Amino acid sequence: MVTQEQRLACAYLIKVAEPPAPALRRFVVAHGVVAAAAAVRVGDVPESVEAETSARRHIDTAAEDLAVAKRAGARLVTPEDEDWPAWPLLPLTNAAARGLKWASPPLGLWVRGTAPLAEALQRAVSIVGARAATSYGEHVATEMGYGLASRGMTVVSGAAYGIDGAAHKGALNATGSTVAVLACGIDRAYPAGHTALIDRIAAQGLVITEYSPGTTPARHRFLVRNRIIAALGSGTVVVEAGQRSGARNTAASAAALGRVLMVVPGPVTSAMSMGCHDLLREGLATSVGSVAEVIESVGLFGEDLAPKPETTPRPTDGLDSEALRIHEALEPREAHPAERIAEVSGVPLSKVRAVLPALELTGLANRCESGWRRTPPTPT
Amino acid sequence: MVTQEQRLACAYLIKVAEPPAPALRRFVVAHGVVAAAAAVRVGDVPESVEAETSARRHIDTAAEDLAVAKRAGARLVTPEDEDWPAWPLLPLTNAAARGLKWASPPLGLWVRGTAPLAEALQRAVSIVGARAATSYGEHVATEMGYGLASRGMTVVSGAAYGIDGAAHKGALNATGSTVAVLACGIDRAYPAGHTALIDRIAAQGLVITEYSPGTTPARHRFLVRNRIIAALGSGTVVVEAGQRSGARNTAASAAALGRVLMVVPGPVTSAMSMGCHDLLREGLATSVGSVAEVIESVGLFGEDLAPKPETTPRPTDGLDSEALRIHEALEPREAHPAERIAEVSGVPLSKVRAVLPALELTGLANRCESGWRRTPPTPT
Repeated sequence: MVTQEQRLACAYLIKVAEPPAPALRRFVVAHGVVAAAAAVRVGDVPESVEAETSARRHIDTAAEDLAVAKRAGARLVTPEDEDWPAWPLLPLTNAAARGLKWASPPLGLWVRGTAPLAEALQRAVSIVGARAATSYGEHVATEMGYGLASRGMTVVSGAAYGIDGAAHKGALNATGSTVAVLACGIDRAYPAGHTALIDRIAAQGLVITEYSPGTTPARHRFLVRNRIIAALGSGTVVVEAGQRSGARNTAASAAALGRVLMVVPGPVTSAMSMGCHDLLREGLATSVGSVAEVIESVGLFGEDLAPKPETTPRPTDGLDSEALRIHEALEPREAHPAERIAEVSGVPLSKVRAVLPALELTGLANRCESGWRRTPPTPT
Repeated sequence: MVTQEQRLACAYLIKVAEPPAPALRRFVVAHGVVAAAAAVRVGDVPESVEAETSARRHIDTAAEDLAVAKRAGARLVTPEDEDWPAWPLLPLTNAAARGLKWASPPLGLWVRGTAPLAEALQRAVSIVGARAATSYGEHVATEMGYGLASRGMTVVSGAAYGIDGAAHKGALNATGSTVAVLACGIDRAYPAGHTALIDRIAAQGLVITEYSPGTTPARHRFLVRNRIIAALGSGTVVVEAGQRSGARNTAASAAALGRVLMVVPGPVTSAMSMGCHDLLREGLATSVGSVAEVIESVGLFGEDLAPKPETTPRPTDGLDSEALRIHEALEPREAHPAERIAEVSGVPLSKVRAVLPALELTGLANRCESGWRRTPPTPT
C-alpha cells in the first residue's frame, strides 16, 4: 500500500527535478521518498542533489498535479506501487548503476488508461521512426503494429506523426495493447493533431509520462523520453530514420541498454531509410522485414523461430549434380540414345545408364524406341 | 610463350570435361597439359580422371574450336599464358585445395575482346541479381555499375536480363571496364535479347567463358559459371534476389570463397529484395547503399573509407545538456529573468547566470531590460 504522503512526495519530486535526475533518484532510494522530499524542500541534501533540485524546490504543486491528473483520467504510479514496471525498467536501473547518468529511471510515472501498467509491459516491443515518414514506412509500421498486437505483444511508441502514429494505429486496429510514452504532461496531447489518437490509446491501452501535468514538450525532453521507450520494449524496431533523427537516438539508447535493436531496410534511394542502413552497416542492428522476424529476434533462443518462407519445390530437387546434368542433356521433343546423353552431359556412359531408369521412375525421363527424352513438367 | 601444341591440348581438355573437373585439373597440374591430354585421349588415366573424361574423350574438335573462336574475335587464354588471371582466381585454387570440388578453377578461358584479361581483373567488383528485377533494382545496379567503373573498378557480371544487364550497361555508360562471364560458348550470345549488349561488352571490355565454342547454356552451367563471377570480384554485390535464385548461389559461393559479400537492401514488401534481406539476417553479407560504401567494403582497411554523409550543423550543437535546457527554456518573443529560466529549465540559478552570457556570445540568446530571450534562428 502506498500512502497519500508517499504519493504527494513523489509528485513533488517529479515536479522539482528535470529528468533524468540520477543523484536525486539515488537519494530517494537511500532515504525513502517522504524523507527525501522533506530534505529537498529545505535544501538539506548533498551537493549533487542540490544541483538537480535547487532551481524549483520552492515550487510544490503536488496536490494540484494529482488533481489535474485525476481530471485527465490519469494516476501517478510510484516505485512503491505493485503496478510499477520494475522489470521492464531494469535495463535503466542497471545502466544507471554502471554510471550512465542519462539512463537513470523515472522517479514515478503518470499513467492514463485503465490497464495495469506492469502487466501491459510484460511482453512489449517498441516501434519508432521518422516523423516525416514515407508511405512505405507508414505501411510497414502499421502492419508491424497490427501483427505484433495480434500476437499478444504490447506496441510501445511515442505518439508522434509518421512511424509512431502508424505503429499505434496498427495495434489499435488489432484491438491489441499499445503504450504511448509522452515527452510532456499527461494532461497534454502532443502533437495536437494526434489528440484523438492519444485519446484512443488511453481508452484501449495506456498513455504514460514521467513529466508533471502542465509540462510543455521541449526538444531535450524528447531525447530524455526516448530512453524509456528504448527500455520498455524487449526490442526496438526502427522502421524509418533519417541520418540525424530522434529515432536514431532511441536506437542508440536501446543498444546501450542491451535491448535488441532491429531495423527495417528500405530503398537505398530513400533518405528516410538511411538511418536504418547506417545502423545495419555499423553492426548495431538486425534486419527485420516481418512480424515473425521481429518475434524471432526478441524471442527466446530456439522458441519463436520465424517460419522459413515456403519455396516451391522442384521435381529435380533431390538429384545430385551428375543426375542433374543428365536430366539437362535430355530433350523434351527428341529422344537420344544413352551414348549421346553421355557426350552431351559429360557424365560417363556407365553412370548415364544407371541414372536414366531412376529418372524414369521419378517421372523425369521417358524411354522410347529411339532412346530417352525428358518428360515435360506437368502444369501445377 | 605458349606453344600451339599446349593451346590445342588445353582446348581439347576443355571440350572433353564438363566443368568443374577437379581430378582432371590436378592431373594437368601434375603432368602438364600436353602429356595430360595425350593420356586422356587413350584412357591411360586414374579412375577419378576417367570419370570426368570418358564420356567425351573421343571427341577432338580443338583445332576447329580455336578457328571458330578466332572467327568470333576470341582467343583461348591458358594457365600458361602471361595473361592468365591467376591472382583473381586464387580463391578457387585455394578452395579446391581445401577439397571443395565445385570450386575447381577453369582449365582455360575463352576470351573475346582486346583488353588484357589479368589486368582488367586487377580491381574488380561483381554485381549480380535477379533477372526479374524491379525498376528499383535496375536503377541501383546501373548507378553502381556506372559509379564503380568511373572509379576505375571493373564490373563483373553474367550478362543476364535484369540486374546483370543493368550493371554492365552502367559500366559501359561510364566508358569503364566490364567483364561478362558466360555459361555457354564464346560464339554464342545468351540471352539472345542481349546479343547487342554482349557485343558492346566485347568491344569495350571482355566476354569470357570456360565453355568450348558451341556449348549451349544449361541450368547447371549457370550455377557452375557463378563460382567464376564470385571469384573474380574482390567483392560481390547482390542487388536484388528472390529467396531461391541464382544470385543467392553466387552469393553463397562468394562467401565460401572468402570474398566480401554485399547486399543492397530494398523494401521489405518486395519479393525481389527478400534474398538480400535473408543474407543480412544470416550475417553473411554487409549492407551497401552507395558506390562509396561498396568501395569501402572491398577496399583496404583504413583506405577508401566512405565519406560520412554531411549533416547540417545546428547552432546548438556544441552545448552541453544543461545549456541546451536553458536554451530551450528561453522564449523567442518574451524575455524572462534568470530566476524564471532556472525554474523552467530545472537548472540551478547559479549555472543559469553563468550560461546565459555564453549563449549571448554565440548568438543564441539576447539580453534585454526585462531579462533574456532566445535569438530566433537566422534563415540560411
